[in-house]
Amino acid sequence: MAEYKAPLREMHFLLHEVFAADQLWARLPGLEGAVDRETADAILEEMAKLAANTLDPINRSGDEEGCHWNEGVVTTPKGFPEAYATFCEGGWGSLLGNPEYGGMGMPKMLGAQVEEMINSANISFALYPVLTAGACLAIDAHASEELKQQYLPKMYEGSWAGAMDLTEPHAGTDLGIIRTRAEPQEDGSYSITGSKIFITGGDQDLSENIIHLVLAKLPDAPRGPRGISLFLVPKYLVDEDGSLGERNAVTCGSIEHKMGIKASATCAMNFDGARGWLVGEVNKGLAAMFTMMNYERLGVGIQGLGASERSYQNALEYARDRIQSRSPAGPQQPDKAADPIIVHPDVRRMLLTQKALIGGGRALSTYVAQWLDIAKFGEGEEKKHAEAMVALLTPVAKAFFTDKGLDCTVIGQQVFGGHGYIREWGQEQLVRDVRITQIYEGTNGIQALDLAGRKTVANGGAFFDLFAADVQKFIDAEIDREEMAEFVQPLASELQRLKEATANMIAASQEDPHAPGAASVEYLHLFGHVAYAYMWARAASVALPKTGEDDFYQGQVKTARFYFARLLPQALALAASANAGSATLMDIDEDLF
Amino acid sequence: MAEYKAPLREMHFLLHEVFAADQLWARLPGLEGAVDRETADAILEEMAKLAANTLDPINRSGDEEGCHWNEGVVTTPKGFPEAYATFCEGGWGSLLGNPEYGGMGMPKMLGAQVEEMINSANISFALYPVLTAGACLAIDAHASEELKQQYLPKMYEGSWAGAMDLTEPHAGTDLGIIRTRAEPQEDGSYSITGSKIFITGGDQDLSENIIHLVLAKLPDAPRGPRGISLFLVPKYLVDEDGSLGERNAVTCGSIEHKMGIKASATCAMNFDGARGWLVGEVNKGLAAMFTMMNYERLGVGIQGLGASERSYQNALEYARDRIQSRSPAGPQQPDKAADPIIVHPDVRRMLLTQKALIGGGRALSTYVAQWLDIAKFGEGEEKKHAEAMVALLTPVAKAFFTDKGLDCTVIGQQVFGGHGYIREWGQEQLVRDVRITQIYEGTNGIQALDLAGRKTVANGGAFFDLFAADVQKFIDAEIDREEMAEFVQPLASELQRLKEATANMIAASQEDPHAPGAASVEYLHLFGHVAYAYMWARAASVALPKTGEDDFYQGQVKTARFYFARLLPQALALAASANAGSATLMDIDEDLF
Repeated sequence: MAEYKAPLREMHFLLHEVFAADQLWARLPGLEGAVDRETADAILEEMAKLAANTLDPINRSGDEEGCHWNEGVVTTPKGFPEAYATFCEGGWGSLLGNPEYGGMGMPKMLGAQVEEMINSANISFALYPVLTAGACLAIDAHASEELKQQYLPKMYEGSWAGAMDLTEPHAGTDLGIIRTRAEPQEDGSYSITGSKIFITGGDQDLSENIIHLVLAKLPDAPRGPRGISLFLVPKYLVDEDGSLGERNAVTCGSIEHKMGIKASATCAMNFDGARGWLVGEVNKGLAAMFTMMNYERLGVGIQGLGASERSYQNALEYARDRIQSRSPAGPQQPDKAADPIIVHPDVRRMLLTQKALIGGGRALSTYVAQWLDIAKFGEGEEKKHAEAMVALLTPVAKAFFTDKGLDCTVIGQQVFGGHGYIREWGQEQLVRDVRITQIYEGTNGIQALDLAGRKTVANGGAFFDLFAADVQKFIDAEIDREEMAEFVQPLASELQRLKEATANMIAASQEDPHAPGAASVEYLHLFGHVAYAYMWARAASVALPKTGEDDFYQGQVKTARFYFARLLPQALALAASANAGSATLMDIDEDLF
Repeated sequence: MAEYKAPLREMHFLLHEVFAADQLWARLPGLEGAVDRETADAILEEMAKLAANTLDPINRSGDEEGCHWNEGVVTTPKGFPEAYATFCEGGWGSLLGNPEYGGMGMPKMLGAQVEEMINSANISFALYPVLTAGACLAIDAHASEELKQQYLPKMYEGSWAGAMDLTEPHAGTDLGIIRTRAEPQEDGSYSITGSKIFITGGDQDLSENIIHLVLAKLPDAPRGPRGISLFLVPKYLVDEDGSLGERNAVTCGSIEHKMGIKASATCAMNFDGARGWLVGEVNKGLAAMFTMMNYERLGVGIQGLGASERSYQNALEYARDRIQSRSPAGPQQPDKAADPIIVHPDVRRMLLTQKALIGGGRALSTYVAQWLDIAKFGEGEEKKHAEAMVALLTPVAKAFFTDKGLDCTVIGQQVFGGHGYIREWGQEQLVRDVRITQIYEGTNGIQALDLAGRKTVANGGAFFDLFAADVQKFIDAEIDREEMAEFVQPLASELQRLKEATANMIAASQEDPHAPGAASVEYLHLFGHVAYAYMWARAASVALPKTGEDDFYQGQVKTARFYFARLLPQALALAASANAGSATLMDIDEDLF
């Protein structure tokens, strides 16, 4: 297994050259002065070290050992508590946090790169601080000032961790039917009773306290999703002076045995009249959760990228080292028994597929993060515009990065041949670990439905038009550059194909309630491919004039060419399937399956 | 997890209605009188029971327990020895065996269905008898009469099992560089010394003896693949009366820890001057191995189908039982809290994708098996024609069934949402188990190269033309049936697309040695999709007139429609990528990756 080396050059290229992040940071209120190029680079450099030296070395061993449960107490694998302590000492838990409560207030554009490194090194580890950061976002946005002061500083510090308690055995996608209930108490708190499953970090031995954000229903709540409220339920109650008091009635009943992310404790939690405090308004719990959902969903997408990058680095090293057979063009290393397998066109196809999908994804995650930053720090029309872009692009990022994350890790395993199937090489773990990212935080089918239905059909394509206009603006700006024609012309055609599929889906939905769901998954993938084409064209636009300077730019241009020649054609098939209508799906009786 | 129910109806439909197997059986020398429809159905019925009652129940437990190694001795999981005994008592090890040595001499068309059931129930288990059957094929085709009489009856019986010892740590795809050597002894035997890895069933506690077929080099052998010979090396030497004698110097040094197929022992084997006997001619060991390769590779493809079918049955049951959210068309079960998820178009898309890929694959495996039977039992021109079809179609079957096997099992896991990631539901095991089928017995990249290079470019498309003519004959016969137009017209267009891609690849290869490898994987997938379209059109052709008789035929026609509308469009993208040339792959320096 290769040693993990953070792709800092690629990250610098995107942040500074393609997206000119420092110009944005310099003008957004709340970011000016807080971050510039030097600060950003120093932060990336530090995480590159932490990821390589602290998080990566406990990834394989964490998978082998897994988490353990004993009478309600969860133990994480060897080295995890120490790594968590190092992580917290570095202040990483506060990176994006609100400065009023001890956060560093950094932009998501930077945070996205930091997250990628953590996830490349160790997805299981990443989940503990990621869930805490998510809980902090919800608390910061919706909790009372008292709760914020009481909880946020400790959570940013990492000495208290967070957990999100949504799913129940009978209620996953459909949270409207949850049964956990909250009884109001005289002192203003609530008594929470019920069972939750699939709770990441529901218990662990890393932090002093665990702050659960729990969805539950008040006794008189309306049925369905409009009757759900959000509660903060600490594992240990917090005394007025901030010290830990007695144990709350929340216990971990068991942990799941899973395909992967085995060092991440996935807990079944029991609430037996646990004390909790309302976060946000009564019956508006789902809306409060959705505040942080855009961040969390992009974060899950980035897990897919992180695993892909790790797999690519391993596969590339193996393809250079493994000697097997001869190049079709004749021996390249005549003094050796065979040539390295990277001489073979199909091995190159595999590696370039990884490289192109990772590069496209990393660029798109930076682009989405840019809109998240404008939505958070911007004002007026610009903020509204950014919010629409975030709403539209989030499901694409979550589902496309993770679907391509499975493809990439499977390819990276395939490059190893039989050795890819053996645990010690690490490639198969990446496949198992990344597989969950297509499922949790809303399955990728749900993401596609969100994109097709709520984000596109429901507003008559208004959000989509903003995205299309952004791509068109780029095309218009580049149309006269002769050397860009190989990218700009196909980008324009594929944008047109996506526009037609969008119009088609909106039109079909007027008469057919099944139209969005029937088109959704292929529509999302078509969208993803056009977005990657846009990203690669932007990268090529910056890199082309610099190909003489540095091999890196050559690599960018050639990867862009590969993307356009070999991967973008998938848009043809995806559009045909997305446009095929719902009849072949719905006109078959359930008994005929 | 659903109970496994063998898809006997589908199998009968293919054997008796689509391919009229009994007509073929009645006229092929060696098969007339040996098998008819009733015999075939009785055999399928028996395996359906064995698979459901004996092999399926130890599949999950076998995965959890895995194999154990202790001082050279391998122990298989609980229940495996008993199941193996039951399997052998039923005579299943002799199903396709040569009747001269105690085999039943059944056709592969029947054997393919039997294998699917074994693999649906338990891939790990299946590997033990499958490897034995493969070793028997090689012995039957190439060993001396004495070796055949000594070994085949016991191996058909199953009391002695087989293992294939090819791979070495530094030599997998490239067997030309193996180092295991064979020194001729005065008594006509050989002394074998070397190390092999990835040896399935290299040691186990199921059979009394293990017969290794080992690739090794004589001291004076030429370099490369033309210097390899094949040897039979038993774990226990066999005395002249057929009883077991002393232990041979072949030992299992360790077993691998793998992603899946954990109940199958994958062994590192050491040969320390072990006694062996030559099988076939000196230096023609690879050719001897390739005799059985077509059977083995189709067999691996069928593993992909088997796992897909198991995953589909589980997913279908779950989709009918799991209550979550409402249909887009309004509540379908207003008395319940939500509707079963099978009402959702995207869940139907997932299930129909599985059903269409499995049905297409099962039909194609039956079609390939038909050509294997004609190649084995037929004569003259018909036999030669069949051999060419087998040579062409085998890499397609191996790679396409298993690539689609991963897709299908991933989809089947996705239908379960979060529960799909939890081990107890079994869906994630199918993903892990099926993943190896894309790798072993020649990676799918190697299959694609075999199809593109040796089987197509090397003969100027001669084998391909035979396949295209077969499809064209069907098109010509159906062209006037109005109700078949929805299948026949797109089939004709896609056949044309495949012909063009074939011609393209052959033409490009005249000047570019990288052309076959650059096109190969997408070319194979394009071929696979056209072949599935042909299969579904044949199924529809038979089913259409009978839709009034039985729901089954309705299901076939509607699945065919889904395949043409939603999956066949992938041919568009695959052809574009296959036709894109090698430049974007080769014109990038190794350092720029």
